[in-house]
Amino acid sequence: MDELRQGERIDYLIRENLSIIQSKEVFSFSLDAVLLSYFAKVPRTRKATIVDLCSGNGAVSFMLSHKTNNSIVGVELQEQLIDMANRSNKLNQLEDRIRFIQADIRDLKNTIPKDSVDYITCNPPYFQVNEQSKVHHTLAYRLARHEMMLSLEEVLYVMSGLLKMKAKAYMVHRPDRLGDIVTLARKHRLEPKRVQLVYPKQNRNANIVLVELMKDGAPGGMVLVPPIVVFEENQEYTAQMRDILFGEE
Amino acid sequence: MDELRQGERIDYLIRENLSIIQSKEVFSFSLDAVLLSYFAKVPRTRKATIVDLCSGNGAVSFMLSHKTNNSIVGVELQEQLIDMANRSNKLNQLEDRIRFIQADIRDLKNTIPKDSVDYITCNPPYFQVNEQSKVHHTLAYRLARHEMMLSLEEVLYVMSGLLKMKAKAYMVHRPDRLGDIVTLARKHRLEPKRVQLVYPKQNRNANIVLVELMKDGAPGGMVLVPPIVVFEENQEYTAQMRDILFGEE
Repeated sequence: MDELRQGERIDYLIRENLSIIQSKEVFSFSLDAVLLSYFAKVPRTRKATIVDLCSGNGAVSFMLSHKTNNSIVGVELQEQLIDMANRSNKLNQLEDRIRFIQADIRDLKNTIPKDSVDYITCNPPYFQVNEQSKVHHTLAYRLARHEMMLSLEEVLYVMSGLLKMKAKAYMVHRPDRLGDIVTLARKHRLEPKRVQLVYPKQNRNANIVLVELMKDGAPGGMVLVPPIVVFEENQEYTAQMRDILFGEE
Repeated sequence: MDELRQGERIDYLIRENLSIIQSKEVFSFSLDAVLLSYFAKVPRTRKATIVDLCSGNGAVSFMLSHKTNNSIVGVELQEQLIDMANRSNKLNQLEDRIRFIQADIRDLKNTIPKDSVDYITCNPPYFQVNEQSKVHHTLAYRLARHEMMLSLEEVLYVMSGLLKMKAKAYMVHRPDRLGDIVTLARKHRLEPKRVQLVYPKQNRNANIVLVELMKDGAPGGMVLVPPIVVFEENQEYTAQMRDILFGEE
């Protein structure tokens, strides 16, 4: 632990009193991580197995740790991000509760038993490979951001395998994939139960979707909870978003 | 033109200057019809075949006629509703542009050719039969409101059959069926392309969903356009809703 490596900075989350090591060169946690942690419902005290897939620099795991007394396991493929997550973990003195595993989430069978997990969070790589992606980014950035290595369907398949029956997964994604999420989730025994749309402003199209999936849930009964609007017209955070970010009312 | 039958009343739509015969005993058009007409995009002047399935008392057809110069064909199973629609049609002097057909939408092959329609609107029966439905309603009401006679999948199948390739259907439904809509639409070559959620108030779950489907559309690319919020906390219509209803800004 140890000073910051080149290109890194520390971001502070006021609400949770967390310090999180970030790096623009690799991947910065963003609104996605904040919203996913906000959206996920995990039990405060009831014993539960919680896994954060595609955990990146650990932001979601750290924020979740403020909503539950349970331990959390983060799984991330990239060594650089695991290294950042481990140093942040030390910095926040959460090593007794959070553990990061460097692994391909498709290859967890010797690490996390099938049908054993109560809650999964996942902020998976987003952009489809065929998208006209600006390719000036580093490989590490692209691995984290694109479906280069891991498709949406693979993520859903892995989630479904890890979850107990009736257990839940929370995912953040892009609204243009909502159709695929529903279709592919159902294909893999995951039923979308709660959906929250995030609009950058009141009169803009949604740009983030939060989805709660239940393994072997009965089909139908999707609830679309009140939307989140991030910014006022004047570019300031809405009261709702300030509450999510800073715990203001 | 004939007086009203028992239990009927006339509702006036200010914006369109329309008189629509309603009956609580059979079925009253509601916000659903207003929102569906608002959501549907039909060409003003370009020649197009437009069909309104499950047209009820004709409310959607009448409102659509103010967005296009094309003719509109409404299809409705129930004789009582067709009768109301025909009388409203006379009342609004729209008989040269709107025609109502009494038919089961599954049995249109001798009336509307396959692959011939450019735009379909549909406000299908909503509630699933297995729902604990209050059964005190009249049969006519239940036929219009429940999936007793016509399932969501049948509606989508019929739409898909009638539409030309790349042509569009607009449907209003309940958000708890959004998962089914996506799955079943794709099964029948309809891709959800634009979705608008309607929330009764800012902090309530969505209770209406508007979906644009494209026949043989490429998978993905769903756009979630800005939500509609119907009421302010004080029970008054929002400015947005007043604009939809009355054309106010």
